[in-house]
Amino acid sequence: MEEQLSEHGSPQPFVVRAARHEPVAPRESALPSREHEFDVETDVAVVGSGCAGLASALFTRWLGDEVVLLEKAPELGGTTLKSAFIYWVPNNGPLQESGVEDREEDFLRYVARISRPEKYDPDSPTLGQSELEYSLYRGIYESAWPAAKLLAERGALPYQHAPHWTDYWHNLTEDKVWNARHLMPAGVNEDQTDGGLIAIRGMSRAATDAGVEIRTGHRVQRLVLNDDGAVVGVVATTADGETVRIGARKAVLFGTGGFTHDADLRDNFLAVPAVGGCAARTNEGDFVRIGSAAGAQLRNMQFAWRCPINLEKAVAGDPDMQGTFAVAGDSMLCVNYKGERTLNEKLPYNELVQRMYDWDPLGCEFPNRVMIQIWDGWSQQHSAKDFFGNSIVPAGVDDAHVIKGDTLAELADNIRERLVRYQAHTGNVRLADDFVTRLEATVARWNEMSERGVDEDFHRGEREVEITVFGGPLSEEAAERANPLMRPLDGDGPYFATLLSGGTLDTKGGPRINASAQVLDDQNEPIKGLYGAGNCVASASGRAYWAGGGTLGPMIAIAYRAAQAIHEEPLRDVGASRSAVA
Amino acid sequence: MEEQLSEHGSPQPFVVRAARHEPVAPRESALPSREHEFDVETDVAVVGSGCAGLASALFTRWLGDEVVLLEKAPELGGTTLKSAFIYWVPNNGPLQESGVEDREEDFLRYVARISRPEKYDPDSPTLGQSELEYSLYRGIYESAWPAAKLLAERGALPYQHAPHWTDYWHNLTEDKVWNARHLMPAGVNEDQTDGGLIAIRGMSRAATDAGVEIRTGHRVQRLVLNDDGAVVGVVATTADGETVRIGARKAVLFGTGGFTHDADLRDNFLAVPAVGGCAARTNEGDFVRIGSAAGAQLRNMQFAWRCPINLEKAVAGDPDMQGTFAVAGDSMLCVNYKGERTLNEKLPYNELVQRMYDWDPLGCEFPNRVMIQIWDGWSQQHSAKDFFGNSIVPAGVDDAHVIKGDTLAELADNIRERLVRYQAHTGNVRLADDFVTRLEATVARWNEMSERGVDEDFHRGEREVEITVFGGPLSEEAAERANPLMRPLDGDGPYFATLLSGGTLDTKGGPRINASAQVLDDQNEPIKGLYGAGNCVASASGRAYWAGGGTLGPMIAIAYRAAQAIHEEPLRDVGASRSAVA
Repeated sequence: MEEQLSEHGSPQPFVVRAARHEPVAPRESALPSREHEFDVETDVAVVGSGCAGLASALFTRWLGDEVVLLEKAPELGGTTLKSAFIYWVPNNGPLQESGVEDREEDFLRYVARISRPEKYDPDSPTLGQSELEYSLYRGIYESAWPAAKLLAERGALPYQHAPHWTDYWHNLTEDKVWNARHLMPAGVNEDQTDGGLIAIRGMSRAATDAGVEIRTGHRVQRLVLNDDGAVVGVVATTADGETVRIGARKAVLFGTGGFTHDADLRDNFLAVPAVGGCAARTNEGDFVRIGSAAGAQLRNMQFAWRCPINLEKAVAGDPDMQGTFAVAGDSMLCVNYKGERTLNEKLPYNELVQRMYDWDPLGCEFPNRVMIQIWDGWSQQHSAKDFFGNSIVPAGVDDAHVIKGDTLAELADNIRERLVRYQAHTGNVRLADDFVTRLEATVARWNEMSERGVDEDFHRGEREVEITVFGGPLSEEAAERANPLMRPLDGDGPYFATLLSGGTLDTKGGPRINASAQVLDDQNEPIKGLYGAGNCVASASGRAYWAGGGTLGPMIAIAYRAAQAIHEEPLRDVGASRSAVA
Repeated sequence: MEEQLSEHGSPQPFVVRAARHEPVAPRESALPSREHEFDVETDVAVVGSGCAGLASALFTRWLGDEVVLLEKAPELGGTTLKSAFIYWVPNNGPLQESGVEDREEDFLRYVARISRPEKYDPDSPTLGQSELEYSLYRGIYESAWPAAKLLAERGALPYQHAPHWTDYWHNLTEDKVWNARHLMPAGVNEDQTDGGLIAIRGMSRAATDAGVEIRTGHRVQRLVLNDDGAVVGVVATTADGETVRIGARKAVLFGTGGFTHDADLRDNFLAVPAVGGCAARTNEGDFVRIGSAAGAQLRNMQFAWRCPINLEKAVAGDPDMQGTFAVAGDSMLCVNYKGERTLNEKLPYNELVQRMYDWDPLGCEFPNRVMIQIWDGWSQQHSAKDFFGNSIVPAGVDDAHVIKGDTLAELADNIRERLVRYQAHTGNVRLADDFVTRLEATVARWNEMSERGVDEDFHRGEREVEITVFGGPLSEEAAERANPLMRPLDGDGPYFATLLSGGTLDTKGGPRINASAQVLDDQNEPIKGLYGAGNCVASASGRAYWAGGGTLGPMIAIAYRAAQAIHEEPLRDVGASRSAVA
């Protein structure tokens, strides 16, 4: 990100780079405080400075409420800063202008069908979904475009249409408008690597301009409740050990991240295991703890925005690590430790990870939990690019994650040695003794299918989304082939490989909210004064990744609705301020 | 269960039958109370009267502490009452007497390998598991046999060895002692259908004899905390609307069930969806709510003791429903809505359900989420038995769940019609248009493989556990075949079918405990005075079903350890009793 910053001028005061290992305050007990002494008072305290936090702060401030924004890291932006910032906005302006009708009913059927496919009932008034989830879908449809439009009109986030993107499930009959719901920040570069940077810069500048008080390095530890159980503030600590109590007359809104970087939460909630992920390093599940300690229901806890990650980078804790959103290369295939190809390498990332955790009920194992991406000199030459977790990097770029060999046998020896180093992180995955033999057979079948351009085993390249979004960089020659995503591996080396595993962009579970972003208690009643948006709260999307930007578009919609509800909150007594900080 | 009762004599005062639809008090807010007025005072309040609750009450009382036991249902026994009551006890007495060495290290490797296979590291001091889980494994190894022995010595639960049982993963090299850890109640009938009844009768009688005060029809709604945050009681309500406040000087122990019968919790936590389950109807996740409202960490929430269930019985809410623990029949196979056979029907139930939720990343569906069990006249004749959820029932037994047809085509028509009725519960599963054609091809392949006795597709019948535990009733002829679990389907009808789906025996997640059964807060510190055992707390078993009785054996061990820790608790002030109940 530093390079991009120099490309775009000096860093802004609140936009530095993706969160690193700078010290943040250690976690303390999340049990709520009932002491009503505050160092700072405001109408609304917003926690988190990624898209959800900044958008919530802006919408709230623009309605006239005072806002203090608190960020745990020394810098703003959270996971959003690392993103391409595609945002998925149903029935958006450019789409309307183009004359395409994106009806609410069509949107609802699409998201219901894929979010909870095991409950989808086309004949039910809520399509088989819970009332609450159905109301969230409706809220997203209703508010995503007004929210995006307002952010653009106020100069925080001008947009451009991204019509080359397609929904991830465009092959389903329920997806009626599959290639027009995507927006991206105006002026984004061709590879969209600076989308998040542009968005965070624009939104944080607008926040400062609007008078939002921004405090970085403030870790919120717990809520402050009044005698009615209403939330009237937060207690934060700084890396220096200072405690800051912020009183909030109207509301506290969490717009923080999920629990990607808390291994204990991952192991105990996620349906599909993950060795790590590419969320901001500060995404440690703070609101899971703080919200539930205040009586919030946790929901949707088993699901995540899943993406493959590079095993070695994840183990190293590289803060700049990106998900391997596209497994690049045409003369490229993935095999498991047995040397078997077991999945379609060009699946949307959320689904690819699901396949990496197929269960073997006889072996008591996930045989695909480490997939070995293997490519040849052709793909090295034509698919190399240093962006978004692409495994295949150009000369001169750090390639410590790449394993090499002049022959498949030599490559296998080097993979074998590399895997042993990571046994503590993989459940002791090692190459099978007959790996080379089976790999050679797998490559022979791959080459034979590639000649014909038909993947009889896993249907690679049969859906448009695989080509337009998950193909990765390809040579011009690819487009001329029957199947641009298939090419035989070279008969001669060198060969290259890297170790992929299942990870998360971020998690999706947390305190439950209603369509006004109010956090709900045990009895489904709003906890007075407590709101949430973004990856820290239970996502309405269930197990699905609706589309690229299916995170950010709905997040903006919920932030917009939160601001409107917060504006109607009564001003609660937060007592007299203390004169000095303890 | 009523029949069994008449078999064994009159019902005991506290042992009636599996919980039915009798009214129980409705759920109220779980937020803890801080009012210190009590109607009843005791040393220890135990909640729940299945194996975990009764064993905890007994061990506690036998150490000299006063105990009040509270059960929500009008009768005792919970899910345990429906069970065969196999209990899995490592290094048990009969095993020691037989000269077999069941070393702690072997036990630990087996349970670590299968509980969290994705984390298993044979070279790690904790085998790659968390310190807490490792300590729970050790606690179970250490205490299961002393606990079982004490229950037997005191006459509450005399045992007999069950050496015909085998661990569910006996094929793994880590399982060194795979067919000797199983006990069952002495005097159980041949089919073990009265195991749970004998155990509950014996334990509840012993509890009464020992002076445990048993109160049925008391739904615990919330904890009572003192100013130090220690648990000093519970608030319960009765079906009549009475509120009863029970003060507990030393501890409150939850030995209740999981959240099988709370659809909202199931949908929002379980890794693998479930349409229901065979736990007691009162297993609605009470301790998930009550524990977390008091600051307990929830853990292991994505996992369950999974078992196939009959879709129609589950939807009907039949309180006597059992899991279909064995999918019976040799001339029997299961197909999905496409007519494809996609799994080994004789897998241990926990794994069979996992396969029922294999994900299709192109179709956006779980194609096997309804499996259609199909059998012929031979299996109807030789595998019919009315026990433990067996789909194939003898003449005279209610067979409303059985679909019939004189030909496969007629059978398919009737399945098609039946499935439509359940679309709201299956995610709209319907038979494919070409179901009959594909079914005929599937049956032809099945018949051909059966002639040879080799299931080349899914390895049915290759492991001992499939034959000894999951074969179901079979004719004598079966044992003479190369593969007793495979037989061609008759060429002529009639044919039979039923609809199976994925369910839970019960869930495995809840408040986290340590190896003394203390419930842990957000900071991993014990919540003073709060204990848990059984399916209401986070199981150490992760994703695994260690063996038949892998629920009950460890449950007894944890109950035993809880009682010892509770005995060391200080007596806390619970204030003056009120004279009358509000």
